[in-house]
Amino acid sequence: MQSGADFHKRTYMKPDGRKLYLYGRQPHELPVTEELEPGPVSTPHLRWHPLRGEWVAYASHRQERTFKPPAEFCPLCPVQPGGFPGEIPFADFEIAVFENRFPAFHPGAPEAPELPIPTRPAKGQCEVVVYSSAHRGSVGELPRERRELLVRVWADRYRDLLAHDMVAFVMPFENRGEEIGVTLHHPHGQIYAFPFVPPAVAPMVAAFREGPVLSTLRERIGDAYDVAGNAHAVAFVPPCARFPSEVWLMPRAFHPGPWTFSDAETLGFADALGEVVARYDALYGRPMPYLCILYAAPKGEEDRFHFHIQFFPFLRTAERLKYLAGCEQGAGTFLVDGLPEQMAARLREVTL
Amino acid sequence: MQSGADFHKRTYMKPDGRKLYLYGRQPHELPVTEELEPGPVSTPHLRWHPLRGEWVAYASHRQERTFKPPAEFCPLCPVQPGGFPGEIPFADFEIAVFENRFPAFHPGAPEAPELPIPTRPAKGQCEVVVYSSAHRGSVGELPRERRELLVRVWADRYRDLLAHDMVAFVMPFENRGEEIGVTLHHPHGQIYAFPFVPPAVAPMVAAFREGPVLSTLRERIGDAYDVAGNAHAVAFVPPCARFPSEVWLMPRAFHPGPWTFSDAETLGFADALGEVVARYDALYGRPMPYLCILYAAPKGEEDRFHFHIQFFPFLRTAERLKYLAGCEQGAGTFLVDGLPEQMAARLREVTL
Repeated sequence: MQSGADFHKRTYMKPDGRKLYLYGRQPHELPVTEELEPGPVSTPHLRWHPLRGEWVAYASHRQERTFKPPAEFCPLCPVQPGGFPGEIPFADFEIAVFENRFPAFHPGAPEAPELPIPTRPAKGQCEVVVYSSAHRGSVGELPRERRELLVRVWADRYRDLLAHDMVAFVMPFENRGEEIGVTLHHPHGQIYAFPFVPPAVAPMVAAFREGPVLSTLRERIGDAYDVAGNAHAVAFVPPCARFPSEVWLMPRAFHPGPWTFSDAETLGFADALGEVVARYDALYGRPMPYLCILYAAPKGEEDRFHFHIQFFPFLRTAERLKYLAGCEQGAGTFLVDGLPEQMAARLREVTL
Repeated sequence: MQSGADFHKRTYMKPDGRKLYLYGRQPHELPVTEELEPGPVSTPHLRWHPLRGEWVAYASHRQERTFKPPAEFCPLCPVQPGGFPGEIPFADFEIAVFENRFPAFHPGAPEAPELPIPTRPAKGQCEVVVYSSAHRGSVGELPRERRELLVRVWADRYRDLLAHDMVAFVMPFENRGEEIGVTLHHPHGQIYAFPFVPPAVAPMVAAFREGPVLSTLRERIGDAYDVAGNAHAVAFVPPCARFPSEVWLMPRAFHPGPWTFSDAETLGFADALGEVVARYDALYGRPMPYLCILYAAPKGEEDRFHFHIQFFPFLRTAERLKYLAGCEQGAGTFLVDGLPEQMAARLREVTL
């Protein structure tokens, strides 16, 4: 048991060697109940793509991963004594984090196969972050204290994972909605710890090395694109949005990641996060399918890289999905039907 | 009417100023029938994304675009005299190409709005390529002569579009399948002529400047990854595939684009193209949803950039789609469940 100023953390080692962390405002002292059987051996590896100049991750053991189980067999639900086993073998919890059963990156990744292209072991870490013991819900519906705890959990995971020599970049994220392939409905996110700075992040690193590009952008646009916020954090539709109703959420002051937030900034960021999700769900009167990506400083970029969240929502109207097709995937250039100025106004004016 | 050695081309100006080209092995001399009413005015513009260092294309007029019309109102079908109007106002045709009614890039794009980020007019061209007058079918099911004509049409469009000063890169592609958002089922592809080298192509340009990376890769892997081919063209699963059963199709000899193919190479490439699509459709016994992207040399790279097609299929099993979620979209790193070696064997051994 480890206790910070504002949360308690209990570390539990699962029988197959994966770690489980139980975070809470209260100490977690419940007894172990029923464990899932051990997962398959993880043998991910990386291959170099010579035309794109990037690593591709291969994890064939992921083919066995859990696919939309019925609610009574949810592996993320708390497990009562004698009940159906799950990944979190305790009768209750606040927030639980555990090493992914089907990781694309793994600290014990074996040597990569020899191939006609460069390969390397997929060293790193993949974790699952379960926001609540309740099977239904969302970041927007969590109690305020729980969302604040979630920001503290992210900060703690950043600290832990960035301490590993093999890790270059840590990315918490949430895939939300069956429309974009989510197979477990229990509210949860994930964290990937990469052994390299991935291709979508490298241009951000280059931009922040040129100057404080995010705060400069924010100064230039003023509050015209704002959709949510408070004294410590602000959310806006960027004027260069690539997705319909894309939103960025940033602390008003410079921070490389949530691990340098004050208590007031932690709460302010959590509040703004909840407001963004609430506005998304109100926009079309249905839960918005989105990717929520946390961009914190890669290792060594802590003096420059301004932490923020980017939301990529996949509805372009109440009924129509945004698809990433030939232009987006083939050319890498995004086509956007709606103007950011209009989307900002709609999100700002939606009735909560 | 213009006639090449191997095809005829008729140019027709639509009432709203958009050009329509009728390509055929036979001269096209049918009279005009019924035209659709003029499309909306196109006002696309580009905005600079300061964090990703790339242009984003905004085209709000695209919100009005045609969405899964019933077959009897298909705008790509030939139009009989007195019949329901369409984009191709002729009673029959072999292959038709016309300027997109809802273009993301347009030669007459107006000045871009002034914003707190850099902007520019979205100069360029977007065309639609209709493979056949039949409402159903696919590249794989076309008669051999038609597929050969399609390769000649691509070559002709490359020549025409690359001749414009404003164009830096031309990309024919096909989005196939409702699963990836296709809204018109009539077999067709598209061509985008970009005023810049787009982000997914820039690393390829850099790679080819370093050396003949594609033919080197091909030499190193030999025929172990082959799935289709003949004396002039070969198709293989690249050992760095990012999509399940991804296939690359290339001419065996160096060519910057299909416009330098000999007649024999044109036919060989067309044959291999048909074989790849036939194998995809046989793999799971259903039409494979995919993106098919033609990568030819951007302007100025004709001595180095080896023309090829990349297919990005979206089925990872017969029933399950590959989704591009947090890791792919947020980090730009692809996670692959299946090994390229296994996928190559399956595609090679499938019963045609």
